[in-house]
Amino acid sequence: MEPEKMQKITIALDAMGGDNAPHEICKGAILACREHADLEIVLTGDEEKIKPCLSEASSDVLKRIRRVHAAEAVSMDEQPTAAIRRKRDSSMRVAMEMVRAGEAQGCLSAGNTGAIVAGGVLVVGRLPAIDRPALGVPLPTINRWTFLLDVGASVRSRPLNLCQYARMGNVYSKKILGVAEPEVALLSNGTEEIKGDEVVAEAREMLMKSSLNFRGYVEGDDVPWGRADVVVCDGFMGNVILKFGEGLMQGAKSIIEEEMGHRFMPRIGVLFMIPMARALWARFNYEKYGGTPLLGVRGTVVKAHGRSKAPAILGALSAARNFIIRDGVGQIREELE
Amino acid sequence: MEPEKMQKITIALDAMGGDNAPHEICKGAILACREHADLEIVLTGDEEKIKPCLSEASSDVLKRIRRVHAAEAVSMDEQPTAAIRRKRDSSMRVAMEMVRAGEAQGCLSAGNTGAIVAGGVLVVGRLPAIDRPALGVPLPTINRWTFLLDVGASVRSRPLNLCQYARMGNVYSKKILGVAEPEVALLSNGTEEIKGDEVVAEAREMLMKSSLNFRGYVEGDDVPWGRADVVVCDGFMGNVILKFGEGLMQGAKSIIEEEMGHRFMPRIGVLFMIPMARALWARFNYEKYGGTPLLGVRGTVVKAHGRSKAPAILGALSAARNFIIRDGVGQIREELE
Repeated sequence: MEPEKMQKITIALDAMGGDNAPHEICKGAILACREHADLEIVLTGDEEKIKPCLSEASSDVLKRIRRVHAAEAVSMDEQPTAAIRRKRDSSMRVAMEMVRAGEAQGCLSAGNTGAIVAGGVLVVGRLPAIDRPALGVPLPTINRWTFLLDVGASVRSRPLNLCQYARMGNVYSKKILGVAEPEVALLSNGTEEIKGDEVVAEAREMLMKSSLNFRGYVEGDDVPWGRADVVVCDGFMGNVILKFGEGLMQGAKSIIEEEMGHRFMPRIGVLFMIPMARALWARFNYEKYGGTPLLGVRGTVVKAHGRSKAPAILGALSAARNFIIRDGVGQIREELE
Repeated sequence: MEPEKMQKITIALDAMGGDNAPHEICKGAILACREHADLEIVLTGDEEKIKPCLSEASSDVLKRIRRVHAAEAVSMDEQPTAAIRRKRDSSMRVAMEMVRAGEAQGCLSAGNTGAIVAGGVLVVGRLPAIDRPALGVPLPTINRWTFLLDVGASVRSRPLNLCQYARMGNVYSKKILGVAEPEVALLSNGTEEIKGDEVVAEAREMLMKSSLNFRGYVEGDDVPWGRADVVVCDGFMGNVILKFGEGLMQGAKSIIEEEMGHRFMPRIGVLFMIPMARALWARFNYEKYGGTPLLGVRGTVVKAHGRSKAPAILGALSAARNFIIRDGVGQIREELE
């Protein structure tokens, strides 16, 4: 396709969000522009700090990276709603305002999760059929990608919220991950009907009557074994198990590395162990999921992990681009209205 | 020590509980009697079915294994309280009655978890200072054993329950696991004070004022990294993350095994990979924790994993024996009254 005929995709990127901002964020933007010829990125944040981070970019890439100055930044431990309300000139809010104004089709931030959710609701706006948005994450499991939500947009949820998460997750699995007939399940403390707390039990009743391919409860071990395409839980639970999984795999990685440096291990053994470590890491690396979409808002809003470095930002930008190309927001709106 | 002077420890073992009953349960009893010369086991259950399982035992071991006939069994999916109430002659209830009557110092079952908890309360009895008992499990982490509770005695908890779990966990960590000054923490969706739901937040306030070495909230990844000695959560959460961790490590194991059988992997490589796989498995094998004590009841009641085979039953019997020797029940009573 000729460049001038190509449909451009513009993503506003919060250059000041996350533990490695702005350097790794900008580097991620450069990587993404190299990978996707249709991508245009607007970096929002402190002009003075962003500029030097772009020195390595080629002129072709630089043509597709704009900068919009934002004097403030939302810090990681700030009270989310207050930060979004008061810091009108923060890099995060400016990126979100661009989505609301239609100047960008989506935005991405590795910053304060609560503020991203608050901004999604207050700046970008909720979809009318959704009471609360949800953060979802495609998790690598033993045999498929399982979309887990909510992983932290809210803390606790009512049964109605869980049902809406289930329906949004179903759309995401079908339209973005390409699963023909997603199996949807509720995360519980056992698979039997008598399990669950009151909230989960009521959501189960509601989902049984829905048109979803709903298979009832799944247990904790059903997640890594990939026994459903969409797993629904409240944000408190989702947050804890996502981080628990990350920690467990990082712990396993550090044990493997320790074992590789072990004095009783002949050097040659290391060569043989690398493919295994790599296979394990590739399959279960919970840091690599590349962007957590905020579902239920009127635009594409994606959160990247706070510890993201350039490759993770590239992954999250690719996920955001994919969500835009497949009209994720439109698909959810259509399904739920 | 002369055998006749040895302090005997009697444990009633539900021979009919769990997926591999009665064969693997009986085999576990034999292994435990071989390992611990002071151990006497009373197998409760169907006499006809138990007898052939003991054919391999030596006469020395057989002297220390008694059988008590129980005509009924509690199945895995039965409604717990009803099962314990109605099935007075079930192998599980008979084992618990022996603890109540002082004929055994403790009991173990790999059966229906809910029924074990119901039996703990209804048959063995709660400690007066405890509103609800908790199931706790010592988890292997990167640098220590972390005692996680509740992993499923209840579903949801009130703040007071969480505080009692914290105090019981503190005693277990100190007296049974030998930690001098256990660090106690609440599992939450972030470490900052503003995180948590209402229940966890109120428990946090209460624990701040307690005499425990309380360090506030920990997150999901703090569990595998071993950032506390005692981690407290409600039974719904504890159940899900325990099973999630089990599933993740089993998944990792199956990937390692698959990789070992890979056609591009030279046979010799397998030899080098075995120590690594073993190191990983030894450190994070969540199935190996060997028995989950029910804390807060008037006797030693230990639950083994439903999928337990003989080595797991041995582990759980050893854990129960240790709990009895160190007077776990007395220690908790003393601390909480």
